[in-house]
Amino acid sequence: MESRVASRIASDVDFDRDGRQASNLRAPLSRNNAGWGTVEIPIIVVKNAPGPTVLLTGGIHGDEYEGQIAISRLARELEPAAVRGRVIMIPTVNMPAALNDTRLSPIDDRDLNRCFPGNPRGTFSEMLAHFLDAIVLPLADVSVDVHTAGHSFDAALSTNMHYLPDEALRARTMAAAAAFGAPFNVVFSSVDEGATFTSSVERRGILSIGTEVGGWGRVSVEGVRIAERGVRNILKHFGILDGSPETGQRDGRAGTRHMMVRDQSYFTFAPANALFEPCHRAGDEVEEGALAGFLHFIEDVDHPPIEVRYRRSGVLWMAAGPGRVRRGDAIAVVMTDYAEP
Amino acid sequence: MESRVASRIASDVDFDRDGRQASNLRAPLSRNNAGWGTVEIPIIVVKNAPGPTVLLTGGIHGDEYEGQIAISRLARELEPAAVRGRVIMIPTVNMPAALNDTRLSPIDDRDLNRCFPGNPRGTFSEMLAHFLDAIVLPLADVSVDVHTAGHSFDAALSTNMHYLPDEALRARTMAAAAAFGAPFNVVFSSVDEGATFTSSVERRGILSIGTEVGGWGRVSVEGVRIAERGVRNILKHFGILDGSPETGQRDGRAGTRHMMVRDQSYFTFAPANALFEPCHRAGDEVEEGALAGFLHFIEDVDHPPIEVRYRRSGVLWMAAGPGRVRRGDAIAVVMTDYAEP
Amino acid sequence: MESRVASRIASDVDFDRDGRQASNLRAPLSRNNAGWGTVEIPIIVVKNAPGPTVLLTGGIHGDEYEGQIAISRLARELEPAAVRGRVIMIPTVNMPAALNDTRLSPIDDRDLNRCFPGNPRGTFSEMLAHFLDAIVLPLADVSVDVHTAGHSFDAALSTNMHYLPDEALRARTMAAAAAFGAPFNVVFSSVDEGATFTSSVERRGILSIGTEVGGWGRVSVEGVRIAERGVRNILKHFGILDGSPETGQRDGRAGTRHMMVRDQSYFTFAPANALFEPCHRAGDEVEEGALAGFLHFIEDVDHPPIEVRYRRSGVLWMAAGPGRVRRGDAIAVVMTDYAEP
Amino acid sequence: MESRVASRIASDVDFDRDGRQASNLRAPLSRNNAGWGTVEIPIIVVKNAPGPTVLLTGGIHGDEYEGQIAISRLARELEPAAVRGRVIMIPTVNMPAALNDTRLSPIDDRDLNRCFPGNPRGTFSEMLAHFLDAIVLPLADVSVDVHTAGHSFDAALSTNMHYLPDEALRARTMAAAAAFGAPFNVVFSSVDEGATFTSSVERRGILSIGTEVGGWGRVSVEGVRIAERGVRNILKHFGILDGSPETGQRDGRAGTRHMMVRDQSYFTFAPANALFEPCHRAGDEVEEGALAGFLHFIEDVDHPPIEVRYRRSGVLWMAAGPGRVRRGDAIAVVMTDYAEP
Amino acid sequence: MESRVASRIASDVDFDRDGRQASNLRAPLSRNNAGWGTVEIPIIVVKNAPGPTVLLTGGIHGDEYEGQIAISRLARELEPAAVRGRVIMIPTVNMPAALNDTRLSPIDDRDLNRCFPGNPRGTFSEMLAHFLDAIVLPLADVSVDVHTAGHSFDAALSTNMHYLPDEALRARTMAAAAAFGAPFNVVFSSVDEGATFTSSVERRGILSIGTEVGGWGRVSVEGVRIAERGVRNILKHFGILDGSPETGQRDGRAGTRHMMVRDQSYFTFAPANALFEPCHRAGDEVEEGALAGFLHFIEDVDHPPIEVRYRRSGVLWMAAGPGRVRRGDAIAVVMTDYAEP
Amino acid sequence: MESRVASRIASDVDFDRDGRQASNLRAPLSRNNAGWGTVEIPIIVVKNAPGPTVLLTGGIHGDEYEGQIAISRLARELEPAAVRGRVIMIPTVNMPAALNDTRLSPIDDRDLNRCFPGNPRGTFSEMLAHFLDAIVLPLADVSVDVHTAGHSFDAALSTNMHYLPDEALRARTMAAAAAFGAPFNVVFSSVDEGATFTSSVERRGILSIGTEVGGWGRVSVEGVRIAERGVRNILKHFGILDGSPETGQRDGRAGTRHMMVRDQSYFTFAPANALFEPCHRAGDEVEEGALAGFLHFIEDVDHPPIEVRYRRSGVLWMAAGPGRVRRGDAIAVVMTDYAEP
Repeated sequence: MESRVASRIASDVDFDRDGRQASNLRAPLSRNNAGWGTVEIPIIVVKNAPGPTVLLTGGIHGDEYEGQIAISRLARELEPAAVRGRVIMIPTVNMPAALNDTRLSPIDDRDLNRCFPGNPRGTFSEMLAHFLDAIVLPLADVSVDVHTAGHSFDAALSTNMHYLPDEALRARTMAAAAAFGAPFNVVFSSVDEGATFTSSVERRGILSIGTEVGGWGRVSVEGVRIAERGVRNILKHFGILDGSPETGQRDGRAGTRHMMVRDQSYFTFAPANALFEPCHRAGDEVEEGALAGFLHFIEDVDHPPIEVRYRRSGVLWMAAGPGRVRRGDAIAVVMTDYAEP
Repeated sequence: MESRVASRIASDVDFDRDGRQASNLRAPLSRNNAGWGTVEIPIIVVKNAPGPTVLLTGGIHGDEYEGQIAISRLARELEPAAVRGRVIMIPTVNMPAALNDTRLSPIDDRDLNRCFPGNPRGTFSEMLAHFLDAIVLPLADVSVDVHTAGHSFDAALSTNMHYLPDEALRARTMAAAAAFGAPFNVVFSSVDEGATFTSSVERRGILSIGTEVGGWGRVSVEGVRIAERGVRNILKHFGILDGSPETGQRDGRAGTRHMMVRDQSYFTFAPANALFEPCHRAGDEVEEGALAGFLHFIEDVDHPPIEVRYRRSGVLWMAAGPGRVRRGDAIAVVMTDYAEP
Repeated sequence: MESRVASRIASDVDFDRDGRQASNLRAPLSRNNAGWGTVEIPIIVVKNAPGPTVLLTGGIHGDEYEGQIAISRLARELEPAAVRGRVIMIPTVNMPAALNDTRLSPIDDRDLNRCFPGNPRGTFSEMLAHFLDAIVLPLADVSVDVHTAGHSFDAALSTNMHYLPDEALRARTMAAAAAFGAPFNVVFSSVDEGATFTSSVERRGILSIGTEVGGWGRVSVEGVRIAERGVRNILKHFGILDGSPETGQRDGRAGTRHMMVRDQSYFTFAPANALFEPCHRAGDEVEEGALAGFLHFIEDVDHPPIEVRYRRSGVLWMAAGPGRVRRGDAIAVVMTDYAEP
Repeated sequence: MESRVASRIASDVDFDRDGRQASNLRAPLSRNNAGWGTVEIPIIVVKNAPGPTVLLTGGIHGDEYEGQIAISRLARELEPAAVRGRVIMIPTVNMPAALNDTRLSPIDDRDLNRCFPGNPRGTFSEMLAHFLDAIVLPLADVSVDVHTAGHSFDAALSTNMHYLPDEALRARTMAAAAAFGAPFNVVFSSVDEGATFTSSVERRGILSIGTEVGGWGRVSVEGVRIAERGVRNILKHFGILDGSPETGQRDGRAGTRHMMVRDQSYFTFAPANALFEPCHRAGDEVEEGALAGFLHFIEDVDHPPIEVRYRRSGVLWMAAGPGRVRRGDAIAVVMTDYAEP
Repeated sequence: MESRVASRIASDVDFDRDGRQASNLRAPLSRNNAGWGTVEIPIIVVKNAPGPTVLLTGGIHGDEYEGQIAISRLARELEPAAVRGRVIMIPTVNMPAALNDTRLSPIDDRDLNRCFPGNPRGTFSEMLAHFLDAIVLPLADVSVDVHTAGHSFDAALSTNMHYLPDEALRARTMAAAAAFGAPFNVVFSSVDEGATFTSSVERRGILSIGTEVGGWGRVSVEGVRIAERGVRNILKHFGILDGSPETGQRDGRAGTRHMMVRDQSYFTFAPANALFEPCHRAGDEVEEGALAGFLHFIEDVDHPPIEVRYRRSGVLWMAAGPGRVRRGDAIAVVMTDYAEP
Repeated sequence: MESRVASRIASDVDFDRDGRQASNLRAPLSRNNAGWGTVEIPIIVVKNAPGPTVLLTGGIHGDEYEGQIAISRLARELEPAAVRGRVIMIPTVNMPAALNDTRLSPIDDRDLNRCFPGNPRGTFSEMLAHFLDAIVLPLADVSVDVHTAGHSFDAALSTNMHYLPDEALRARTMAAAAAFGAPFNVVFSSVDEGATFTSSVERRGILSIGTEVGGWGRVSVEGVRIAERGVRNILKHFGILDGSPETGQRDGRAGTRHMMVRDQSYFTFAPANALFEPCHRAGDEVEEGALAGFLHFIEDVDHPPIEVRYRRSGVLWMAAGPGRVRRGDAIAVVMTDYAEP
């Protein structure tokens, strides 16, 4: 029934028109002293000649910067004449969160990436999720949603994707991820995915790639480089731009290393609220049973620290972000080389 | 399915009883130290002899005062013996917002006028919207919802209505608006209306009139006068009270000037966060291309102010409220004389 | 349709396995610096031999302590070998509120006990309500949900139940309540119950008992004693544990006194925001028309206090909690001896 | 130097005039929409015939109700003709906190009773403390400051005083406390007293009595009775009213039991953040080494509760208030019978 | 002693240099993610040829816009060659409040204009007050501090000054105010002035003029015009710019009308928290005993409004700002024609 | 005068006793439901044989973790028998901020390191600063205060010190810093130092060393290593522990590189609120005039980024922390090799 309810978000973009359009989505937001206030969200569409549609999104979480930088730079530089197909770019989807420098929206305290498929009459985040799902996604063949680990972790620079049951689509997605050219590509099984943007993308049968190209709440110089190269590589891979993807790695490797996170046994969780001192950094090789770090109880100096250990061997995908962690937080995620199950 | 779910809001009013009833809607609100707390919302019903039902509502936004004053005064004074029909008065619908002196509800940070048709098990504002839509509206033939521009704008004193596709209903509504007797009546096309109270009223085929009789966060002396006269005029127009509407204007005009706001080109938006200095006041005649005002960058004294210009000629309906505006805020709305399209 | 949507809350409990399982529900909660954060909610299941399933819940409101203490103590002590049937224990359902020491959830500012049947993709409280309703309740034959009056009131120590139209179920429920063995058992007619946990329990035809075993925001020594004895008594009553319920009262009475609260005329409400000085304590006998207390206007020393009176004779079930009350708050609830209507 | 700076708080009371004056202290408080806003604090002075001056203060903490009730009732009832001397009554000193129902001031988040001797140009609480210290105290011979345990504890109903090194003043103060007639009078050694109101009173050589006549955030029926009788008893004791103090106790004892709290070894502190289940109530006799209660870790059901024990035998003066306590909070204070050291 | 403590605020302005300098005061503000963050506050100095120093300040309260606009415009336009003397301009003193659009500072919740003479190691507002008092004021001969009524009132457009005991300085100040050329100049006796900027200016023997050129939280078109003309008139009056002040009024009057507010009997205060409906606007003539307005109790429709009356005849200087007022707020201030006492 | 006012903070440590004492400072903190609440701050003193006193402090800012870890580990491990002199360790000075994971105190929103020398009756941070300055510092000969760049920057791992005018003390401090053994030691001129802990240390003539051993809001694995080695090296350097400092660097360098930051020209500030993309990382060599990074305006995709350049050549000491920066924030600080001026 809800699909019949129009979005309250307005857009003057003509998605069928050739050339470059740089406009704003206009999302109404009633404030106490601006009843007719609007949140403007830049959207840039470049279209030319027949070809597929790639949707590039950044800033679904406000404190994930690298995608916002890479996509807005592409949006300023992409020449329509060079394009065969259509590129839809929304560099900063969650504008209120980005301007607030937080993962969650300051308007409704929700994680936009847990609000899909959304609700056109719900809270601001729900309204925005609905617009992406119901209005934008039907236009796309391929979705590249650029995330980082925000303030939660530092991530080994990587693309990621679900382990898709459809073998052909899985292979096509892995090929696209390889074309993106991050040092790693992580194939993982869906956990708590019912309300993410990715779940909406997959539900519609669209090829879906995510990324983790930074973290620690900082802008990663290398993460920006990988993200910028990656979005251009994707356009090349799908024939929208000329040329072949550049996928050489800093360490001399020729391409992307495909990895897996099979289940929650690859996660290490904090058993208490404490200050976490890690022993490794993202990208390090780690051993099952080895010390992942210490949980310190600074309010009680003679309380011995809790030693936390890895439950699996592999490469550290996600390494703890903030020093203070809470019981139940993931503080390390290990990935292993990809293998068909 | 939701229509089968009873409202959690209780009322002991017997809408079919003759005479005057002054009671309270009792809306449950669980607070941290009052699990069985209740928000009481005055409702006054005066009924006598056969006749139509007029619903008068004020305070859907908490900082819009003139309707609250005019309707509560009427509610204290209206004699059942003088009435033919039924008058349902809710002077302050959004009681939590009114006591908080804000447009938005302090309970759930929502704009009640963006929550319709509501949800009986949702947040407080959603529950309240549902009660109005599902319980109150089915009783009404005519709805007069008294708004002002709150802290968002100052408004030229006016009634307003949508441009209704049904010609007969449009004519009847314009006649009722003329009877209300504000200096202006503004006919506008629906923008972002899917979740407003007006949208609920119209969906049910009820004659709907809104107003803008003040703003700047103050109580307008003249706005109160127009609102008080207007609600009595409406009762006269529909035969509920004896007598003819009084519609003479201060400037000697005989009645209401019908105006239009055709589309968003009549709006001027702020292109940046800044301090806005306007050049005109609500009700002034303005010219397309003329200077509407300056956006000052007080943090950067040598940054020249941005000059903002009107995009249409006409009369200034809405003039900027607060000095500080944000990118995307409407800061001026121009209206032109009514003409059939 | 929603019933087909899986919960985002994970549990590794095998409800069909014999023995004792002590685990945690893992409810995802994205925070600004922990995108993959989780709220862990202890759940303990003890199962052995054929027999009924009793669900024991505490802490649906975070500041209601006695049930959390009694059920977690039972959860530590209950030996599988002594059990015939299954006992599912969630001592602190609303963990975020409990850690915040408030009735409402600090995450979404909602009262969990007004969010049923919930929504798996809604706010945290809605997600949690859905899990209880859709995943846990189908397993239960009997539900005992231990509440107190929190910071809202002090309560005469009691169980409570709705006046159920089904006479046999009503009798069975009264018998179970008598077995629980609180000084009073209160049978009341449903008021604002559409969104409570009890409403979900009853909708599924499960025998439902609530309690009020404390209040004033403190841990009642006697309330803990009654709650601990009560949950064990329930297990004996349903044959899950050996032995007979112990139901002797401190004042020498042999068992539970069955009471009624027929309608809202047994409530006294505050007519103004003020400081309330009560004349009686919970459990006192009071008379219709007698002084219940005074509302003091401390900001206006010569304003005479308002005298508030009881509207019914009986025993004081709920006596005012905080000194400051708001217009519309219930400040006294009177109960009378049970009698078939 | 600061004593030369006039207070910003205005008062039109003439402290030298005979008769009854009921007025308001006017404390300026600039708010965002009321630059010239004022907090009005009732002050009532009754003066007649020569005699000493007693200062009665309540509500220095906003959630301590019994003194506010008792003093404002006295302020309404006291007849000048019956008085010999002067009674200065400020029933609710900390009006912003009282209207907010909190111990701390909502304006500056300070505990007024930790702000003495204050600062006339400081924050609101500092300005208020300065007014009491510099303007009001010089008028008084005797100060009775009515406190309760607020939301922090429940208290055995009592007066209290410091162990004063001046033997004569100590004896006079104990006699006055006995005249007040609470069940207990507690003589304790100063702990963290440098910034309390009592410290200001004593610094000026004024006879100082405090009270603890309630707690648990509720209005104690018996606490109000003791407070009302106590303030009248004090006036009788000092010859301001005719008659002898009534000091009989509910349990048949003839008068007040003098007690001591010698040092911090009589306190029991919480060693961790947890849910505290006490074993006793205020006024109970307790034994050194006996169980004071349990600290429960509800987030970790198999974590055994910490057992907390009394460090001294005696009578429980202060019993834990809220269920949730934090590391370092006092959760029990024991008093012993008074004896000269 | 504090005068020896250097300010933490840095400035690279050379106040002795001829020509125009546009720079920023750099006030350190440690934020959670910017330990070395700075608030930049524009300061513009224009100096040329011998002559007096005029200090022009705006935005001491963040929501008072007209002075910020007028002074920053002057700061952009003033040519050194045209100047004889020195003009120090700080268009927006309280930058954090201005960017937050509030009277009070969002950093420490203080009213900067109640923090003088300040403290270099205190809170942000105290540090800023100290800088103005200790570093800037010693440079000035004349201070014009442009205020409006913010969100508190609407003001009859006016300058203002204290009734100075020094007759010659009073006459010089009245002459300067007349040169400013607002419709009114208000001479008032100091009320709660110990901590204002004006008190610091006067303490140093500097000629001091204040203004009230707007209010209602909006930018007054006429207020900007008066302010712009006024600051240029002041420069002419003191010989810093050539030419004579332009002081003609819109209503044809030749100059400024000097008025008085003798004491608090010219103020009308709100006796209760309510919604205030005024009967007049700023600048209206009003009569002692006449109705000033109504206080409406919208939560209690049958509660008759309180009628509030003027206590003096005269011209309305300040008319109520927001609809919701609190007990103790000033809601009307009347001024009368100036006369030597 | 304030030095005569005793601290409200209690300590049972006997600083003259030999052996190891692990105790808590007890700082009173009145909360709304714990009037006698206390913040416990661990302090560990190890003393043995004659020798100097070294004070080690961490966590003056709550989100600076490495010092808290290193000092608390030392505090658990240090054997009195191995010590000659006295080591006073306060691993987490600002406990409320540390538990809140923020630089600023959540109690009074102040930066503790801008509150010195403090005030025993001021806010919590002021009270704590006073205790350190007035009670602890007089005991010390050497102070090592372990900081990191928190969430503000990432720092090249370093010690730091002021450029002290006293040549001998400067040499002794540089020698001690070299003994600490960080990769860099930064000598800088005091900027905004009047209220820092360092200013208090230096005022008392104590040898003072600070550090920057991490940042980006994460725990640096290498930073912890350097900090742990450094505090032990200091004890060796001053003869409190046996052995020689280990000062070899990872890159093979033999010891610490002494650097300078002469003045503010070595800082790069953000000219606007924006998203900052840096070009380098802390420790990189950079050139005057080279691109430091881009300020992106993500709300305005066609607004070209602002290019920010270095003003000096050298090594990057501080590199931007968060992506979102505000006008006036420092985003890069360059250091050059040390040379006598």
